[in-house]
Amino acid sequence: MFVKQTVKGMRDILPAENEIREYLLGLLKSTYRSFGYSLIETPCMEHIENLTGRQGGENEKLIFKILKRGEKLDSALSGSESDLVDSGMRYDLTVPLARYYANNAGSLPLPFKAMQIGPVWRADRPQKGRFRQFTQCDIDILGEPGCTAEIELIHATTTFLDRAGVRGCTVLLNDRRLLKAVMDFCGFPEESHGEVLIILDKFDKIGAEGVKKELTESGYAPQAIERYEEFSRRLSESADPLSFCGRELAEFLPAGTAENLNTIISAVKELTSAADTKFVFDPTLVRGMGYYTGTIFEIRAESFKGISIAGGGRYDKMIGKYTGNDVCACGFSIGFERMIGALIEGGFEIPGLGKKVALLYRRSFTVADVAALQKACAPCRAAGRNILIQQMNKNLGFQKKQLADQGWEVAEVGSVEDLPGILG
Amino acid sequence: MFVKQTVKGMRDILPAENEIREYLLGLLKSTYRSFGYSLIETPCMEHIENLTGRQGGENEKLIFKILKRGEKLDSALSGSESDLVDSGMRYDLTVPLARYYANNAGSLPLPFKAMQIGPVWRADRPQKGRFRQFTQCDIDILGEPGCTAEIELIHATTTFLDRAGVRGCTVLLNDRRLLKAVMDFCGFPEESHGEVLIILDKFDKIGAEGVKKELTESGYAPQAIERYEEFSRRLSESADPLSFCGRELAEFLPAGTAENLNTIISAVKELTSAADTKFVFDPTLVRGMGYYTGTIFEIRAESFKGISIAGGGRYDKMIGKYTGNDVCACGFSIGFERMIGALIEGGFEIPGLGKKVALLYRRSFTVADVAALQKACAPCRAAGRNILIQQMNKNLGFQKKQLADQGWEVAEVGSVEDLPGILG
Repeated sequence: MFVKQTVKGMRDILPAENEIREYLLGLLKSTYRSFGYSLIETPCMEHIENLTGRQGGENEKLIFKILKRGEKLDSALSGSESDLVDSGMRYDLTVPLARYYANNAGSLPLPFKAMQIGPVWRADRPQKGRFRQFTQCDIDILGEPGCTAEIELIHATTTFLDRAGVRGCTVLLNDRRLLKAVMDFCGFPEESHGEVLIILDKFDKIGAEGVKKELTESGYAPQAIERYEEFSRRLSESADPLSFCGRELAEFLPAGTAENLNTIISAVKELTSAADTKFVFDPTLVRGMGYYTGTIFEIRAESFKGISIAGGGRYDKMIGKYTGNDVCACGFSIGFERMIGALIEGGFEIPGLGKKVALLYRRSFTVADVAALQKACAPCRAAGRNILIQQMNKNLGFQKKQLADQGWEVAEVGSVEDLPGILG
Repeated sequence: MFVKQTVKGMRDILPAENEIREYLLGLLKSTYRSFGYSLIETPCMEHIENLTGRQGGENEKLIFKILKRGEKLDSALSGSESDLVDSGMRYDLTVPLARYYANNAGSLPLPFKAMQIGPVWRADRPQKGRFRQFTQCDIDILGEPGCTAEIELIHATTTFLDRAGVRGCTVLLNDRRLLKAVMDFCGFPEESHGEVLIILDKFDKIGAEGVKKELTESGYAPQAIERYEEFSRRLSESADPLSFCGRELAEFLPAGTAENLNTIISAVKELTSAADTKFVFDPTLVRGMGYYTGTIFEIRAESFKGISIAGGGRYDKMIGKYTGNDVCACGFSIGFERMIGALIEGGFEIPGLGKKVALLYRRSFTVADVAALQKACAPCRAAGRNILIQQMNKNLGFQKKQLADQGWEVAEVGSVEDLPGILG
């Protein structure tokens, strides 16, 4: 017997949920298109070298790897795990986008504004609302060094979320260079920055005390930890944290970093049309990916218990890993599953959903009668109406109820002549 | 350095092609929706047991297999290939649909009319127009035993192809029971039917002589091969091949098989609105999949050098492999890549593509100026217009040409005050 459940951690999407997904994906595409983004597509598999090049942070531990095939597998079977695989499932859409740009730069405009929607895979521990295959919706601007890129990406993303009915969004902003300056200021050695960031990233879960404890357990110098504690305390007491950082970290921060963040925050505040969207500098924001080099941002929504539904930032050094020449880049990604899950829990309804008619014909209908029904429906279908043609089940009451539950307006058809009266 | 090319046999899709894909996918979804099909989604991975259960024919040799992870991998590393994997990439959308139905039957109507669009993977030898990841678009009717299912599936599929501008379609129809009757009639032993079908499937490539040669080389009884030759000859000379088969094979054919095929062909002929679509009984049509149990069909298009762009049939025994209880089922799948490739070669243009405006602003614009441009564009974008905002490159002429080639109407913006004049 075959296995009827999905592969662990993955899910089937039922028609009712999929109607909402399709509606929101349509809204997302039309919103992003209205900002001039071009939809592209990349394969779901990438070379294993590209996926394990220290770009994906913790995600690199979660890759679904593809076994080699044929002779190449035969000769590898005696070896270790890395000999066995030649590719893996992408864990995000940014690594493939960078490869795409490197591969097709000659056919693409500069700057290039890309939109990509598709499944990604992470062999994470399955938990509520978290799946091993999930959809990401990304927009990216490649080749724009200035913060007009960040401003437009945030503006476009919050415009979509507002149109989709996601209420109470807070956009948190930070800059990786600022995080690096904090670590330098405190005296954490450069080679430990990756590990320290992973600990700092837990701030919103374990708090200042927890961070201190983990840093101590990892064996960092007490002076550095104390300096970090002291800095954090003064920062949290500051009336204008961004200016505070700019001033205190001046020695370690590239010129203009704090001002750049300030420019972005002012501009997006001015641009937003959603009165309940907030834009906040968050010096504890880290974002997991290894590839960020500058601004980073994340959106949490009050209506979704504060979970993160979108994230992004600047990654100016990734395309160079494919071509040898850096191309600056910045992107924003919506975690579609999380957003949808929360919207549906909130009782989301598709506005102005078109009428769908289910025609139930008598069991005495011949094949020719049904074909005549099909023929009579052709003009209405061509005009965009959705018409389901179906035989009456023995349990007609249950059938009608089930169809009505799915949004069908049900009509019984005694003969083809009834149709004009039903379809109007 | 990372690898910038795609994984072997897969492809990046550039914006211009993707616009056509999106347009056609939209047309496909709205056409199928107008027939009452519900869009569903299944994960791209399936349990390896489901994929290697002799349902997929030759495709089972082409599966991309997923390596086990963590402890399970460690304990398997000393074993053989089958110990190493626990899942694989789906090679079609029918196997996942059957699993989906088995898994969710309680939440689904009966009959269930499903539409599924998504990527599938086959580690085939890469060749022109044939990729290792490609998109299939399927519609299926589960729970409808009568040929009204076949009629509607063929009617809906040809309606879409007609609307998409695919000219000169020929729908070939046959029935697996008829192929079995031919093999019984000729005296091929039951256990060899699978292998014989693989040889008969090559008829349109290697002809009657080639088929005879391969059957002989495979060691089948000369009497059986002669009987097949004789039957094929008389069939090809027959004025009404379907009646001929019904008559000659009566002893081996379930009652009504030929009449059923005749009813389907008559009905779809009557229903089609495309004058250049033909419907033809083809006794040599086999279709590769192992899961078909009755009617099978395939569409070839003259405008596409006769290659197959869609195929399907009845598979009444597959869902039972998941649940123990058979549910009759029938489906039709369009190979989207092939269709698109041929349409684009033929110079396809999207009808009535909306105007897209690219605003190029002076290099002297400040971040605040650009933000003001964004703000001024908001109403037009909300009304559905696509507006790209971009800084003038140093090589303005090249930039304008590149944008124009991609369908953008280019306008230079000296100041925000120019906007009303440009956007009208």
